[in-house]
Amino acid sequence: MNSRYKSYVHGRSDREAERLHYQASKLAGLLHHDTCYPEGNRVLEVACGVGAQTTILARNSPGAEIVSIDISEESLARAKLHVSQEGLTNVTFRQADVYHLPFWPETFDHIFVCFLLEHLPDPLLSLKCMKEVLRPGGTIAFIEGDHGSALFYPDSREAHTVIDCLVQLHREIGGNALIGRELWHLMSDAGFMNIAVSPRIVYADGSHPESVEGVKNIFIAMVEGVRGPAIARGLVENETWEKGIRDLYRTTEQDGTFCYTFFKATGNRES
Amino acid sequence: MNSRYKSYVHGRSDREAERLHYQASKLAGLLHHDTCYPEGNRVLEVACGVGAQTTILARNSPGAEIVSIDISEESLARAKLHVSQEGLTNVTFRQADVYHLPFWPETFDHIFVCFLLEHLPDPLLSLKCMKEVLRPGGTIAFIEGDHGSALFYPDSREAHTVIDCLVQLHREIGGNALIGRELWHLMSDAGFMNIAVSPRIVYADGSHPESVEGVKNIFIAMVEGVRGPAIARGLVENETWEKGIRDLYRTTEQDGTFCYTFFKATGNRES
Repeated sequence: MNSRYKSYVHGRSDREAERLHYQASKLAGLLHHDTCYPEGNRVLEVACGVGAQTTILARNSPGAEIVSIDISEESLARAKLHVSQEGLTNVTFRQADVYHLPFWPETFDHIFVCFLLEHLPDPLLSLKCMKEVLRPGGTIAFIEGDHGSALFYPDSREAHTVIDCLVQLHREIGGNALIGRELWHLMSDAGFMNIAVSPRIVYADGSHPESVEGVKNIFIAMVEGVRGPAIARGLVENETWEKGIRDLYRTTEQDGTFCYTFFKATGNRES
Repeated sequence: MNSRYKSYVHGRSDREAERLHYQASKLAGLLHHDTCYPEGNRVLEVACGVGAQTTILARNSPGAEIVSIDISEESLARAKLHVSQEGLTNVTFRQADVYHLPFWPETFDHIFVCFLLEHLPDPLLSLKCMKEVLRPGGTIAFIEGDHGSALFYPDSREAHTVIDCLVQLHREIGGNALIGRELWHLMSDAGFMNIAVSPRIVYADGSHPESVEGVKNIFIAMVEGVRGPAIARGLVENETWEKGIRDLYRTTEQDGTFCYTFFKATGNRES
């Protein structure tokens, strides 16, 4: 069993799968509105997980043939079920590891990757592996978050501490929760052309109750999910943890604000 | 002489005036594209400083009558010169303090305020004072930065330290360099209606050389400007300061990235 598979920082519970689907649906407009692939094109989705982004991709590009891979058979089973429940027929699934892609060189017209790189010990190597299976001139798109972008009112040292716990746990298992800001250099270093990175900011205040719910159910829920390991590893005292989480919820009250920035990067393989 | 006037954290040198004009021209699209006032409307610009935003306002709303105030006669003299050099004739200037506005109640159709609140010991009081001179149903717009939004690659503890020095110096003289995130609650607390806050993110990487120059000439120059007081007050050791500034410049090299978020808020006085 691959170490990434074993060590997925958020776990693979039903509740986490729900959080991922909720997150994907809430962020679809912000992150996906400019992703649409032409009829007949072959698209590789790397690390589809439970299929949260897959259904959005498949609906946005109904004429494209999407191949979605993941390293976890368990996640793939969930993804298949989800896609078939949504009545989508343009996706096939395959178990595969991004470092050992089971495809001939230059197989795909496009590659789409969402929330994978943050979990990888060697993201640059993964980009190079993906580039191999992309046809010359084909496009690649990455979407990643960056936990260092969390900005909120009221500000709170303890709230930053609990977020830092998540960042540190990611790092301990070889990931990087601050990778959004690195998409530019990763794509340059991997030799992609026409690279364009755009930040996508989520902003929540009392005038956007739905965004405020999103902050609770996506971001704060994700931070809360690592309470056990954070305390077990001594990254934080129990009292600080409790205050940090309380302070994060405090930012979702009537006078609070919360911002988080995702980064989307696109580029081409040289023709 | 008013304490805000004496203690303007960035100083009032020629170099600072140049930095402000450069900043305004580079950010005009991002911050001003949605500010345009109708023919014949009376607009109050509060804290026009050296007129860096005034010329943009006046050009965007050529039919509006703009009254621009500032507390500093010296800045006003520079602003007048700048506006007349640009051939703009729809602006009049007046020396005034935001806490004691020399206008009858309900005089203005619109109020525009850019980069003022961060310098005020009592921003909420200033909003209430401005509301008095705004007609019922009139609009108000604020633009502020938030230094806590600075996010960059390569990341650096020392770079954050030098930014924190600027934040701390703002605070020592009664200001708040993290005020962007507070616009929502300040406008709510002051009783404005239909409040809408939007974050405006500046993102710079090697594919945007002009934005990278902006990061150097606006943000890093602003941080560098407080070297003297930061070291004199013992907020930072000389060596840490030098490394922090070096690391900030490092983010403007070919593989670096830099993000900063401004916040624009608009609202109405109740009709």
